[in-house]
Amino acid sequence: MNFPLGYRYASTYAGIRKVAKDDVALIVSDAPAAAAGVFTQNRVAAAPVVISHTNLQTSKGRVRAILVNAGNANCATRTGERVARECAAAVASAIECQKVQVLPASTGVIGVELDPKLILDVLPSLVAGLDASRFNDAASAILTTDTCMKTAFAETKGARIAGMTKGSGMIHPRMATTLGFVMTDAVASPAALRAILKRAIHRSYNRISVDGDTSTNDTLIVLANGASGKSPAGLEAAITEVLESLATQIVRDGEGARKLVTIDVSGASTDAAAETIARAIANSPLVKTAIAGSDPNWGRILSAAGNAGVAFDPRKVDIDFQGVRVCRSGLAAEFSEAELKAKLDGPDCSIRFAIRGPDSGKAPGKARFWTCDFTEEYIRINASYRT
Amino acid sequence: MNFPLGYRYASTYAGIRKVAKDDVALIVSDAPAAAAGVFTQNRVAAAPVVISHTNLQTSKGRVRAILVNAGNANCATRTGERVARECAAAVASAIECQKVQVLPASTGVIGVELDPKLILDVLPSLVAGLDASRFNDAASAILTTDTCMKTAFAETKGARIAGMTKGSGMIHPRMATTLGFVMTDAVASPAALRAILKRAIHRSYNRISVDGDTSTNDTLIVLANGASGKSPAGLEAAITEVLESLATQIVRDGEGARKLVTIDVSGASTDAAAETIARAIANSPLVKTAIAGSDPNWGRILSAAGNAGVAFDPRKVDIDFQGVRVCRSGLAAEFSEAELKAKLDGPDCSIRFAIRGPDSGKAPGKARFWTCDFTEEYIRINASYRT
Repeated sequence: MNFPLGYRYASTYAGIRKVAKDDVALIVSDAPAAAAGVFTQNRVAAAPVVISHTNLQTSKGRVRAILVNAGNANCATRTGERVARECAAAVASAIECQKVQVLPASTGVIGVELDPKLILDVLPSLVAGLDASRFNDAASAILTTDTCMKTAFAETKGARIAGMTKGSGMIHPRMATTLGFVMTDAVASPAALRAILKRAIHRSYNRISVDGDTSTNDTLIVLANGASGKSPAGLEAAITEVLESLATQIVRDGEGARKLVTIDVSGASTDAAAETIARAIANSPLVKTAIAGSDPNWGRILSAAGNAGVAFDPRKVDIDFQGVRVCRSGLAAEFSEAELKAKLDGPDCSIRFAIRGPDSGKAPGKARFWTCDFTEEYIRINASYRT
Repeated sequence: MNFPLGYRYASTYAGIRKVAKDDVALIVSDAPAAAAGVFTQNRVAAAPVVISHTNLQTSKGRVRAILVNAGNANCATRTGERVARECAAAVASAIECQKVQVLPASTGVIGVELDPKLILDVLPSLVAGLDASRFNDAASAILTTDTCMKTAFAETKGARIAGMTKGSGMIHPRMATTLGFVMTDAVASPAALRAILKRAIHRSYNRISVDGDTSTNDTLIVLANGASGKSPAGLEAAITEVLESLATQIVRDGEGARKLVTIDVSGASTDAAAETIARAIANSPLVKTAIAGSDPNWGRILSAAGNAGVAFDPRKVDIDFQGVRVCRSGLAAEFSEAELKAKLDGPDCSIRFAIRGPDSGKAPGKARFWTCDFTEEYIRINASYRT
């Protein structure tokens, strides 16, 4: 696997989280990179979200660096924006670029003041440690309750893409989810990159859910520095593939999750209606606990869909659960519960929810969505979360 | 405590649920009673919901009996409506009334055919056992995963009210939630009773949430048979009090719950906006798990409110958590984490979320909402639910 050209990475432990594990990461593009970002839609947006959003606009989408810290969300704090700006400015000075060309991002506890000195003190060694090979170090430093590193790579006609992401709880599809950073050495204008990101995120990060919560800090940034000199036609497909891989890795590593659940809805009046039904199934604690227990309780799937607020005729619904037809025309189908139960014990689970049209035909609306099962471990993790 | 006059109750075991615990209940008013009902808004409505809704209209709100079974939802089954109608008709014949004066209600597993013979076979002994003193037997027979019987009583100027309810999971406020039956011997017209129920439910059953799911079978029926000859002015307040007591009993017995959480939102632009914020806090798994773990993690409350989709300025928000001011003007307040943690160990928890107005004044919108904490036990119960 080849990393995109023209990027360097570094990470270090700044003492922000209590355990001595790297908690600051720096991603630098040697040349200004076209940049596009999507951010949380939570009314309560963290300071780094506000600053990154502003900097993307002020820099006209030309960015040199991303500064990330884990362990403190820098949200709902007195000094939030000043700290985010001060740290970004220090990076700009160290790598010699404009202040607005540095995007800050944070993740961690809300409402605790972030001491900028912790970051400023380690900055010289962080910058000194920048290296093209330290991608994984940066990808590890941004994690919080994640149990594993989440990265994805693609290559298309001489251009390379590398992505890293974090997140396993508080995952819900509203624009960006959690933190994600994707670097490519393809040539793209900021406007083209924004258009690609908008479409790609709709089919990846916007289609996952772990617990229905949306954080105050969600940030996804894509950089394209043009170092390959290539502008391949397949760039959008490759970026989408990377985002989809990152997004499903988040769900598979959902807090306490043991199963990745893929939900396909078809035959809804529109794609948006299909997505609404898929999301309702994905967010139902009763569906998710049934899957955790390998319980072939398909009635919960039908009931969750009925709560979506979308009109459909239950008597036109077929449901396949793990490839087994459990519901035909809204009624119980003939199937072996024991067989299905055994099939549900694996690490992957699928739900197909198909609505037949008024004639024999089918309405065109469809959507794919990912979620995870809901286990006791989720509660254990979240009942006493500490950084 | 005095039971309302003119009602008799019975219960028996019909073999619908696997454990030998009464699973059929019958409530009979000696004279036709004014009746009002609210039902699930799930697109997938169980057969008894459809039949009860129709019967309420056809009988012009004059009802003699309610027939309830637990262990089978009679939903998404081939024979659903025929079974519900057949059983209601058999009750009508046995107590000598019109078929449409009997309202069926069911709760339990979805998608399993309900054998009407099980109910028809026990009907003679059920009717023979009807007695004014067997209220608690009926209240016990309607329970499923409930850990305790839920009843409430009130008396106002010579009129008596008695209510029973069931439910501890799949609880979410959309009109009625789960099953509830309230009997009064007050005099009231069906239209007056409908108006009272509409207002009372908005302040009780519509303001609770256990897991954000809405069942296919939710039914709440109020009967007023006039046997007391009284029509007290305080009837609405007394019915509201009974519904509020029943609703909070459901939340306190939420699956796996150890704590009843009362959420008060004030200073929103309208009551509806306040309710939306309160519901978002009540449904956040992260807030509910924090409370389970007595974790003073108030940032999750602010973040959940920010996801409600309602506009407010986070810098104008004060939050009291268990009586402790944890957030002032959107920022961390000075408080002792250890002290708050200790306070959170009790069986009751309170959250006050106050938005200050643009001037020093306060917008008038407010709402009270109830939820419960979210424990590992919820998962354990729902990962392998069996009747």
